[in-house]
Amino acid sequence: MRDVSIVGAGMVKFGKYIDTSMKVLGRDAVNNALGSAGADKKQIEAAVVGNAMAGLITGQECVRGQVVLREMGIGGIPIVNCENACASSATAFHLAWLYVASGMYDVVLALGMEKLYHVDKKKSFAAIGSAVDVELMQQIVAQMNEQQAKLKAERAARGEAEKQGGAGESRSMFMDFYAAGARDHMQRFGTTKEQFARVAVKNHYNGSLNPHAQYQDVCTLEDVLNSPLVAEPLTRLMCSPIGDGAAATILCASSIANRFTAKPVKVLASLLSSGTDHGRDEAGVVTRVAQQAYEKAGVGPKDLSVIELHDASAPAELMTYEDLGLCKQGEGGKLIDEGATEINGRIPVNTSGGLLAKGHPVGATGVAQICEVFWQLRGEAGKRQVKEPKIGLTENGGGMVRNEAAAMSIHILGV
Amino acid sequence: MRDVSIVGAGMVKFGKYIDTSMKVLGRDAVNNALGSAGADKKQIEAAVVGNAMAGLITGQECVRGQVVLREMGIGGIPIVNCENACASSATAFHLAWLYVASGMYDVVLALGMEKLYHVDKKKSFAAIGSAVDVELMQQIVAQMNEQQAKLKAERAARGEAEKQGGAGESRSMFMDFYAAGARDHMQRFGTTKEQFARVAVKNHYNGSLNPHAQYQDVCTLEDVLNSPLVAEPLTRLMCSPIGDGAAATILCASSIANRFTAKPVKVLASLLSSGTDHGRDEAGVVTRVAQQAYEKAGVGPKDLSVIELHDASAPAELMTYEDLGLCKQGEGGKLIDEGATEINGRIPVNTSGGLLAKGHPVGATGVAQICEVFWQLRGEAGKRQVKEPKIGLTENGGGMVRNEAAAMSIHILGV
Repeated sequence: MRDVSIVGAGMVKFGKYIDTSMKVLGRDAVNNALGSAGADKKQIEAAVVGNAMAGLITGQECVRGQVVLREMGIGGIPIVNCENACASSATAFHLAWLYVASGMYDVVLALGMEKLYHVDKKKSFAAIGSAVDVELMQQIVAQMNEQQAKLKAERAARGEAEKQGGAGESRSMFMDFYAAGARDHMQRFGTTKEQFARVAVKNHYNGSLNPHAQYQDVCTLEDVLNSPLVAEPLTRLMCSPIGDGAAATILCASSIANRFTAKPVKVLASLLSSGTDHGRDEAGVVTRVAQQAYEKAGVGPKDLSVIELHDASAPAELMTYEDLGLCKQGEGGKLIDEGATEINGRIPVNTSGGLLAKGHPVGATGVAQICEVFWQLRGEAGKRQVKEPKIGLTENGGGMVRNEAAAMSIHILGV
Repeated sequence: MRDVSIVGAGMVKFGKYIDTSMKVLGRDAVNNALGSAGADKKQIEAAVVGNAMAGLITGQECVRGQVVLREMGIGGIPIVNCENACASSATAFHLAWLYVASGMYDVVLALGMEKLYHVDKKKSFAAIGSAVDVELMQQIVAQMNEQQAKLKAERAARGEAEKQGGAGESRSMFMDFYAAGARDHMQRFGTTKEQFARVAVKNHYNGSLNPHAQYQDVCTLEDVLNSPLVAEPLTRLMCSPIGDGAAATILCASSIANRFTAKPVKVLASLLSSGTDHGRDEAGVVTRVAQQAYEKAGVGPKDLSVIELHDASAPAELMTYEDLGLCKQGEGGKLIDEGATEINGRIPVNTSGGLLAKGHPVGATGVAQICEVFWQLRGEAGKRQVKEPKIGLTENGGGMVRNEAAAMSIHILGV
């Protein structure tokens, strides 16, 4: 398989675009990526488009990529629509990489896009709920509710006040999964709610430096802890928001990258996998795929300069530190306390603001993570620039089937 | 890129499975393919799953493949969900081929599946309607209705009786597109409604020989002509039915195919493309992709022994004869009249019964076409076996954006 490089990246500011169609968001992201690469749309030989939920939000299924790309005059080439829940566009990037790495096409577009925001928020949350086994979903939700009720009773027995602020009435069911995982981590390793909150503080600070971020306001530890409770220990500011957006990258054979730019970014590893029936204790899907990616790229966690990871909730970021091998198991809380993952820390994580602050328009997230690492590695990250990074990693998970991520994608990029 | 072979193929009988979940249909197709290959599920290193409309029918979006495969113990590997309307699983097969051809994985599963039938038929037809630009759809439908009204007025002026039998009240909007194309062909080349009907007679006969076909009844020319009018000149028996089904193939590197079978089928060309803004007169997407595939495989239309093509309507088959170069433009009617495309003819087409009789569970169709050619090339097609075929072709189109197929896939297979 031949070497592949990224020569252009572009996105739109993530946000709530109720009156803007996906055609416009997708087009702008693609044009920004083409501009970044100094490429013309006619040079694109194939396109892979990731989107998760347009079918359930707008009714546009089946040919989502064509609808966006043909509108802007891109056609007569392979256009693949792919879907892997929150990892839809990491999957799109992986397939675009595969097209180039195989030798089949030289210049390929990877586009991720999502219109998730809807005036009826329940429609957005219901769409997110399709990222699990829908048949089994009700059964799992029932178990979760039982657990919550037990916890509530325990708190009541201890005489603690009920902080539930009503935010739980309309939310993604995934936050229940994350909350359960966070409680487990607290119990096993003594991790604190403050440590989770510190992740949100860091990512909101980073988002304040990123013009593409949906939320660009800093917040304090108190802001995070005092924001409405979603599911213990998650408060609203520890959860990624609903939003819309699009992100695109142009990939090409490394051998021709200099036609586009003097600063290509190499794809050192492109891995996609899915969960097995093992739980976290038996390594888990992130650890397994990360190990494969490190091996493929010939690097280890200590070689990383910058990371974008899937902080759909703040605790997820902290636990992923451990899964990626940035620290030992159980020491994620220590890592955030030390400031190691801040922009000027030992290993900066989610310099973009992450899903928490940059936003999480599901199908756009995977490619948007790659855009951030691309900019960081080229020294184009503005106020949030990490000092001379050489190697970056993105981690993007999607959906949940049988208590494990349905999709897990890890990319390692380098200059 | 390395040579790729198919070593196993399996499907379920297409039909209406109102009480059977996609997990069961998909599982049975995969197990049949594994059985055909003499392979164990643990040998599958990656899976690509095509499905078009589950999101709109059952609410299952995002992780459709994982929901089916994890249920049967297939996980811990890349699982890609892809979508390209009626070409969803030809796209899945193409990506599975790419995984193997690139050298990344040795043994890959391609699965196509669809649950399209719904007690409320309008839900099925609405789902099919998502295979176009949904924003533009209403505009196009309005144009079509205007055309139909004009035609109706012309017929009335000629004193012809209105044959509309009410079938048009609940139908796929694609039949309007096909009808318009058929009328154009009649006008330009003198093609007759009887010739279109003859395609349906042939395919229903072939279906009667195929235990996997949704409809296994023969029908006469009169039956076809007298079945309810859908949109002039299409009668109901000239249109593919709504149905459910699944089909799977196991692909591997040709270098290791003998681990599975002494009769592998080679993938000589795997092409996917999308329409441009050119109309049929400027070659059109089928002709363009077919030419690329012929060149890639090093064969021409005269070398083909058997073809499965996208007869979503009977006229589409006849016009595709021309686009594939089986005859000159305008001579499709002559080809069907001569019996050249019957099982014992010069170039048998849709020996499976095609979409018209075997059925058209959208996301399953592409891989099902490949199953049929696989069986034909291995001499395993039972009563519908073509005599010693060497090279087969499948043509699978999907969706419509800007008056051209959104996706077009052509595969050439050989022994």
